[in-house]
Amino acid sequence: MAEGETLVGAIDLGGTKTVVAVVDAAGRVLRHRRLQTPSRPQPDALLALLTSELQALTAELPRIAAVGAALPGPVDGARGILHRAFDWDWHEVPVAQWLAHALGVPAAADNDVHCCCRAEQCFGVARGVDDFAWVQVSTGVGGALVLGGRLYGGAEGWAGEIGHIVLEEGGPRCACGRQGCLQALVSGPAIVRRYAAARAGDTPAGGAEAVFAAAARGERVAQELIAAVATDLGRGLAVLVTLLNPALVVLGGGVMASLRPYLGLVDAALRARVFGESNARVRLAATAVGYEAPLLGAAVLAQEAARRQGSDATGA
Amino acid sequence: MAEGETLVGAIDLGGTKTVVAVVDAAGRVLRHRRLQTPSRPQPDALLALLTSELQALTAELPRIAAVGAALPGPVDGARGILHRAFDWDWHEVPVAQWLAHALGVPAAADNDVHCCCRAEQCFGVARGVDDFAWVQVSTGVGGALVLGGRLYGGAEGWAGEIGHIVLEEGGPRCACGRQGCLQALVSGPAIVRRYAAARAGDTPAGGAEAVFAAAARGERVAQELIAAVATDLGRGLAVLVTLLNPALVVLGGGVMASLRPYLGLVDAALRARVFGESNARVRLAATAVGYEAPLLGAAVLAQEAARRQGSDATGA
Repeated sequence: MAEGETLVGAIDLGGTKTVVAVVDAAGRVLRHRRLQTPSRPQPDALLALLTSELQALTAELPRIAAVGAALPGPVDGARGILHRAFDWDWHEVPVAQWLAHALGVPAAADNDVHCCCRAEQCFGVARGVDDFAWVQVSTGVGGALVLGGRLYGGAEGWAGEIGHIVLEEGGPRCACGRQGCLQALVSGPAIVRRYAAARAGDTPAGGAEAVFAAAARGERVAQELIAAVATDLGRGLAVLVTLLNPALVVLGGGVMASLRPYLGLVDAALRARVFGESNARVRLAATAVGYEAPLLGAAVLAQEAARRQGSDATGA
Repeated sequence: MAEGETLVGAIDLGGTKTVVAVVDAAGRVLRHRRLQTPSRPQPDALLALLTSELQALTAELPRIAAVGAALPGPVDGARGILHRAFDWDWHEVPVAQWLAHALGVPAAADNDVHCCCRAEQCFGVARGVDDFAWVQVSTGVGGALVLGGRLYGGAEGWAGEIGHIVLEEGGPRCACGRQGCLQALVSGPAIVRRYAAARAGDTPAGGAEAVFAAAARGERVAQELIAAVATDLGRGLAVLVTLLNPALVVLGGGVMASLRPYLGLVDAALRARVFGESNARVRLAATAVGYEAPLLGAAVLAQEAARRQGSDATGA
């Protein structure tokens, strides 16, 4: 089969929703199925479910060459082991090994944020960019760094956690237990909390999306709050840019999709705070791969696993 | 000559003081001369002075194999061109080419902070560490990053500028023109300013050193101020550590030498604010190369230039 026709399986395993798909070499999703992730799943049962869903999807297609998975927690990407899934009490689950065994093809797995970053690098706005950051603003705030063309993990794989830089001493409590993290200022739950505080405790039904809807309707309190959130996000990004001098910062995640009309405010807050003429040239862009980023990143992992297998087989 | 006996010339060109030296392969300074840097020097005259000083030093020694220079401003390290020396109105001065021509040996040059970082990696506490940050606390606050074993410059060579991450919105004015940068909180001039403010405008004679001396004498205001400075430095380092997950942060510079007894406070402030179990394992250390760091880093550049020349000559 020509490289252009190589199909791979891709799995985006999320805390609430999971997608299994068949993806071609150009990053096109040919078939997909979306399911509710079972509540507090056991590893074996969940991986068996994903395997059978993927087998059903590929029934009428050529055999997939490999499978990749994006996972909700810290992962040893080299071996495809999920160190921890915080919501499920999973520890050291060898996901790639399990999938390879069940499906009879090479398998790989990595953290979902790393997968988004890889997808952006292969199919998105970061194509051909050697130095960039991926920042995801959602229920949490995460990030990943591509430095000198390669995903950079730091000494032990924890690099990129921009959501937990402390921006405001003594600021709001973060899910991580500390105070004033970027995540505690701009994540979905943070937006809901800040809006409720601005309205004297009146928590909006519908979460952060309701706050964005209120701003779109012209509600002053919501508009001011969203502007403050955009500024805080720009402040956090300015720290990253000043430290790392990337050429590009790519923003993704559900909250970011709603924040997109306010990207100019984020950009202005960033540019007012970066150091140096070079950093002032940094490009800020919304993701081009969007909601499919983790799934497409899983496909990139699978394509790499298939290529490794191919070069092993030919002795290269 | 055996590699262990290779001698190189090293130049640390500073804004106020300059050192020229002969250094052996183990980083020992065999001869050195310290001079006042002429005020607002012209490039040709200053480089001619450095050349003749170096020739005088080497008169009774074996011929040096190469020369390296640490320069006070942004440098194109690959070509040894000083982009800018802010205090002197120098622009695009090809220092390495000039030195190579004048001395008849290979030459290299880089930014002084990069040189410190390289010296620490070759001769200091960062030997064998692939992922670390060098942070210099002095009249300014600068930094350099070694990521995956190599000095990381970012998209255009500006990476590492931890002194200009904004830690305090609307905080004190920084030399860079913005407000609340780490440098505006913990540099020598910042310490003097903060102390004067705490004493209702009473500026100490003797600069930051006088503040440290007052703290050592038991003066309460000075002690509280130094503790606040140590905490602010820890806050800044925590941001770097959370973003990059290094194994080690090395602290150098003149102010840091005075802050050394307070390193425990810096460490505690850092650890209270880093994210993740891995980051909590980061090691914080004072420089082991100290005041000679830029000079020794210049020697590292020279050794590399000599090796490149050697492998070119043997066709390797």
